[in-house]
Amino acid sequence: MSRPPVPRDSANDYTDAMAASRRAFVTEQTGAALEHVGQYSVDPATLPGNIENFLGVAQVPIGVAGPLLVQGEHAEGEFYVPLATTEGTLVASYNRGMRLLAQSGGVKTTIMLESMQRAPVFLFDDARQSRDFGVWLNQNFGQIKVAADATSSVGRLHEIQQFPAGPNMYTRFNYTTGDAAGQNMTGKATYAACEWINNNFPGARYILSGSMDTDKKHSHVNQLLTRGRRVVAEATLDAGLMRDMLGVDTATMFRARQVHMIGGYMAGTAYLGAHAANALAALFIATGQDAANVSESHTGFVYSQLLDNGDYYWSVTLPALIVGTYGGGTGLATQRECLEMLHCYGTGGANRFAEICAAVVLAGDVSLAGAVLAGDWVSSHDRLGRNRP
Amino acid sequence: MSRPPVPRDSANDYTDAMAASRRAFVTEQTGAALEHVGQYSVDPATLPGNIENFLGVAQVPIGVAGPLLVQGEHAEGEFYVPLATTEGTLVASYNRGMRLLAQSGGVKTTIMLESMQRAPVFLFDDARQSRDFGVWLNQNFGQIKVAADATSSVGRLHEIQQFPAGPNMYTRFNYTTGDAAGQNMTGKATYAACEWINNNFPGARYILSGSMDTDKKHSHVNQLLTRGRRVVAEATLDAGLMRDMLGVDTATMFRARQVHMIGGYMAGTAYLGAHAANALAALFIATGQDAANVSESHTGFVYSQLLDNGDYYWSVTLPALIVGTYGGGTGLATQRECLEMLHCYGTGGANRFAEICAAVVLAGDVSLAGAVLAGDWVSSHDRLGRNRP
Amino acid sequence: MSRPPVPRDSANDYTDAMAASRRAFVTEQTGAALEHVGQYSVDPATLPGNIENFLGVAQVPIGVAGPLLVQGEHAEGEFYVPLATTEGTLVASYNRGMRLLAQSGGVKTTIMLESMQRAPVFLFDDARQSRDFGVWLNQNFGQIKVAADATSSVGRLHEIQQFPAGPNMYTRFNYTTGDAAGQNMTGKATYAACEWINNNFPGARYILSGSMDTDKKHSHVNQLLTRGRRVVAEATLDAGLMRDMLGVDTATMFRARQVHMIGGYMAGTAYLGAHAANALAALFIATGQDAANVSESHTGFVYSQLLDNGDYYWSVTLPALIVGTYGGGTGLATQRECLEMLHCYGTGGANRFAEICAAVVLAGDVSLAGAVLAGDWVSSHDRLGRNRP
Amino acid sequence: MSRPPVPRDSANDYTDAMAASRRAFVTEQTGAALEHVGQYSVDPATLPGNIENFLGVAQVPIGVAGPLLVQGEHAEGEFYVPLATTEGTLVASYNRGMRLLAQSGGVKTTIMLESMQRAPVFLFDDARQSRDFGVWLNQNFGQIKVAADATSSVGRLHEIQQFPAGPNMYTRFNYTTGDAAGQNMTGKATYAACEWINNNFPGARYILSGSMDTDKKHSHVNQLLTRGRRVVAEATLDAGLMRDMLGVDTATMFRARQVHMIGGYMAGTAYLGAHAANALAALFIATGQDAANVSESHTGFVYSQLLDNGDYYWSVTLPALIVGTYGGGTGLATQRECLEMLHCYGTGGANRFAEICAAVVLAGDVSLAGAVLAGDWVSSHDRLGRNRP
Repeated sequence: MSRPPVPRDSANDYTDAMAASRRAFVTEQTGAALEHVGQYSVDPATLPGNIENFLGVAQVPIGVAGPLLVQGEHAEGEFYVPLATTEGTLVASYNRGMRLLAQSGGVKTTIMLESMQRAPVFLFDDARQSRDFGVWLNQNFGQIKVAADATSSVGRLHEIQQFPAGPNMYTRFNYTTGDAAGQNMTGKATYAACEWINNNFPGARYILSGSMDTDKKHSHVNQLLTRGRRVVAEATLDAGLMRDMLGVDTATMFRARQVHMIGGYMAGTAYLGAHAANALAALFIATGQDAANVSESHTGFVYSQLLDNGDYYWSVTLPALIVGTYGGGTGLATQRECLEMLHCYGTGGANRFAEICAAVVLAGDVSLAGAVLAGDWVSSHDRLGRNRP
Repeated sequence: MSRPPVPRDSANDYTDAMAASRRAFVTEQTGAALEHVGQYSVDPATLPGNIENFLGVAQVPIGVAGPLLVQGEHAEGEFYVPLATTEGTLVASYNRGMRLLAQSGGVKTTIMLESMQRAPVFLFDDARQSRDFGVWLNQNFGQIKVAADATSSVGRLHEIQQFPAGPNMYTRFNYTTGDAAGQNMTGKATYAACEWINNNFPGARYILSGSMDTDKKHSHVNQLLTRGRRVVAEATLDAGLMRDMLGVDTATMFRARQVHMIGGYMAGTAYLGAHAANALAALFIATGQDAANVSESHTGFVYSQLLDNGDYYWSVTLPALIVGTYGGGTGLATQRECLEMLHCYGTGGANRFAEICAAVVLAGDVSLAGAVLAGDWVSSHDRLGRNRP
Repeated sequence: MSRPPVPRDSANDYTDAMAASRRAFVTEQTGAALEHVGQYSVDPATLPGNIENFLGVAQVPIGVAGPLLVQGEHAEGEFYVPLATTEGTLVASYNRGMRLLAQSGGVKTTIMLESMQRAPVFLFDDARQSRDFGVWLNQNFGQIKVAADATSSVGRLHEIQQFPAGPNMYTRFNYTTGDAAGQNMTGKATYAACEWINNNFPGARYILSGSMDTDKKHSHVNQLLTRGRRVVAEATLDAGLMRDMLGVDTATMFRARQVHMIGGYMAGTAYLGAHAANALAALFIATGQDAANVSESHTGFVYSQLLDNGDYYWSVTLPALIVGTYGGGTGLATQRECLEMLHCYGTGGANRFAEICAAVVLAGDVSLAGAVLAGDWVSSHDRLGRNRP
Repeated sequence: MSRPPVPRDSANDYTDAMAASRRAFVTEQTGAALEHVGQYSVDPATLPGNIENFLGVAQVPIGVAGPLLVQGEHAEGEFYVPLATTEGTLVASYNRGMRLLAQSGGVKTTIMLESMQRAPVFLFDDARQSRDFGVWLNQNFGQIKVAADATSSVGRLHEIQQFPAGPNMYTRFNYTTGDAAGQNMTGKATYAACEWINNNFPGARYILSGSMDTDKKHSHVNQLLTRGRRVVAEATLDAGLMRDMLGVDTATMFRARQVHMIGGYMAGTAYLGAHAANALAALFIATGQDAANVSESHTGFVYSQLLDNGDYYWSVTLPALIVGTYGGGTGLATQRECLEMLHCYGTGGANRFAEICAAVVLAGDVSLAGAVLAGDWVSSHDRLGRNRP
């Protein structure tokens, strides 16, 4: 009476034939034609480890914006940026922001910190055992690191943070993970570490995640203590250019900034600027990042100052930017091509890609902030009085 | 010296030829072959309003999970669910959760509230003017609603919330928006409303967004006051089934729940369960939702109880689920097909789709919570002592 | 073997003799002389309803600051402010802030909203029952209000907010409570309302608090939706006066403001200014407020703008200021005298007192912000470069 | 025309005569009699460093609760606890909680971590300078510590945490401060450290607080990273005793716990239990702590489990408990006596006092949670169905 399970071929499930068979099955069950879904060029044989029950693809349109001028340490020069989105005006708006930034001298990008986590919790009978364990953990960090690092040629444990609560010791195991986003790598390494701990500290029962890695969800701990890369993008916008290209003068922009910061704070918002998520979602889909990480990566701070000469200093800090250029979806057909557009594919690409992401976020924030003020505030026929709050 | 702008055809930019021209341009500028990106079946002529500077597509693999048994008010019966992702095991894990839920009687889904916002801020010289304005705003709601509702055949303003701070009156204009996600619709309606206000309340300067709509970013105000749809998915999991299918008994699951709630609270996490973002990102990409909305939509609460008979009551509440089945990317080639798989395309589909989203989130949380405990906690050779905290 | 209970006289426990007896008992048990604790002028017979097991008093030193010039709607003119504290320099610093504010024209204060809560949660078998109940609750607000309002001559229910999660309907019952802080009044009224609901909506099981009143704890819901009074204090500080009296120019102050807002946001702070809690704790102790309410009342926003003429607009918003001038500890011996210093004792005093509280908070923030910058930043021998971020 | 300043005697302001003079002045200016305020036994000559413009005292009634049985590492045995409050039933309720806890074997208390902060921010021209500075800061920790520690015989710098944002390096300088609360001590030490840094790192402009110490305000960073002492209080409550003394069975209590955790999370509350602030405010006023610190100290987590035998494991974690038994108001007349009641006055007392504070908080939470359920839920004539969520 219940509907049948999806067809699978236990011998070789990653073939065009099986994809077609599943499309036919779905069509039969639901009546939906899957004509376009079945139009793809990616080779199913490349998909193990990326998908199960493959039946075709989503074709997400890509628009190109740029050139984006980045003055980074890893990304230097002008880039053409692939943005996969279905939100109209998004590419055009980012493009406008990139033009303004380029004419203002480009975006300076800096990777401040790098730290990917798995966050086991250790369970004890009382708080004192937990505290004793915390001391022991610090004392044995070297051996724990050996156990963790042995599981990978890239992942390196550099810190174990402790957040005791009740009888439980919540931790964050912090790693660098090279050019991989690193969630699986840190999971495997931390499992090995926990097993070592389990064998060496009597009574250390654990759960591999105590919810403080906050995988696939925004969290305040990420804002404070970094997840993935903590990246800053900065620019100083010329007053004349902003007026000409955005239709807003810098003093008005800065006055509005005060208004938005209080609104954002009162709302309890995860991002204190305009819309990091738009840039990140479009970049992540195009380049084979895990799009679910937009939930974590979109958090950030915007710090700006109106300079004495009327120019506008603008910085965006992304404290939890999770990207990789190796592994995950980065090697798939279109995804790899988009990374190659940015010279970011493979080894050595992650830092460059992280810098580009932050620069694109800044471009989008500049453009949207201008649009909100020029289109609406100004059109209200009553510009914000300069001598009034 | 600077790199050239991206080619555009001002007469007709949405053609295969222009897409090819842009790919060739990018290849020339960057050296990246865009062979696969150029393989698509979507007709560029369908893309105005969805993308600018189109040059091809991201092919994101889709796996199908199910059947998912939903006992909703809009979604009733068994569904095969398209998940677009590059994260291996994700489809398999959701599939497992769906099996357990189906055998436990399916997922009951309920849409509690619906409210999409635009959130203008009104600027005054002092707090008293702001307070006076707030009184006036309440008194004139009827006429403001007329002005707002006139801009759309679907969007309906039902409430204006006030959050005064300093001399500024931050507001949230709350709408129902039918089967559209509604951000543009509410923007247009609120602009009309603000202009009416501007003409009728002397001195009401405004910015169309005061940052309390928190568009494309998680916020606490959304958790409290809803954005998009507030949806609950509930199930009661049979104790024997959970043990058999997840390898975890319900008492252990519940004990671990206490641990995770404190970890999540301490971390300041936006979602108190395992990983809503994974389900939502995969569904959103497949069905033409705005993937950037994962930032907002992934927030939620998990409330559960261990029943006297040992069964496990489990509920997920998504207070800010932003979906549409009309407009945006929903009509594009593959995206529409995926909505049709779920019988959700077009008018009347949004409520059904929202219910399915919540049910899928629950399936994924059930499966992952089981995996964390069975795989790791249990394998630690020292199961959580039953009589110990 | 266990130590004896504290002596009580079931006939009349509120006497000097019983206080002395308890002091003697404590001295015998602990060795501590309670000589000063026993020196009080308050009549024990006035203490029922305020304390149990009375044995004496804490003598908290009071310093007087002022005059504070308030341009409020309820508080108008100059006030001498009693601050009960043991933190040296606090009174002096507030005094300095009051002088600067007075010379700048005083503090404009405005009460924006008033709302005290009790927040019952209603428990159902599933979300649909909860939603049905929510509809019913709106439809029956009139009768519920009758039941609630009948319990008091002052408390008036004006709104029931709904926050559904899972199968439970969390609510906030919002009241005005006249000159009482109102926690007990709203508890009693809401209990009556819930019993009426219980009798009229089959199956409405409830807990009188579902934790969303957040009594005696800071919460984000209070920032958004007000608890007690939402009060704004505003002033425009003359540039020359600030430089003369604080040793800081307004441009430097505003530049630092940007730095502090990002620091406060990143820290996840409950108050975006310097130190509302100091003012409130000192005022609350002096005037018989519930000092535990400092936890809730100290939250707030600081919004400021640097005006074109160089003056500094500064506003503080306290969204959860909980005060009363009737009931609680306000009628006790010294507490009443301190309220009388402010012309705030008894009926009609709560609004005046709320305005004074906000004005004092502003005075303290102005003074401390100046001290931090003049004392430290400047003394660093390298003033903040004006053309640098 | 403006009112006169408060009388001061620059030669010797701390005398009964000057206090009387100020009372007379206030009476003249305001009409308020300050008869009781003038009744005190504290010697004004002991007040320099605690108050300015002294004119008398607030007499805050003290009730005694107990005995409280503490199984701490610093506090061991039974204590009689002075609670200064004007909230009726508070002492009685804490007393009830203490009785239940004592009969269940007492409260186990543990100090997990200790860390008091001053949090300077260092300002740079761009993020790279900030990052370079961060590296330098780590490399020079030893010398910075020498500079900081030289300012005090007690305060010891043990860590400098870095939170870069934009071009600014926000830090937290973490200290142990012995038996003093330590805010002034850490301020002085950090000032010395910053001056050393300023002399040794070219271009390091700083503000002594960048708002991440969150002095006198609740913050999330304190929950995560500790401020003052991080203390756990634990108890296992006997099922029969809870039923007898609170009128609630443990299963009902635990079921309600699930409801409250979701309510508290949704509200964005700073304390996940019932009311830590009540205990802390009453203890702080009695013992000369800074009552404004209730804003910070009241935050915390409640973690509990229903054990297989029906008993109830209950823990409270206070991550930001700020207390001292030396300096501040602790040496004043009544305040010292109250500390002596607890054997906590002076050197060596702070750890003991912190443990007692946490135990009292637990007692109050147990009692109030019981009252809410027994009085209201049960009286609703429809107890929470055991087999229903």
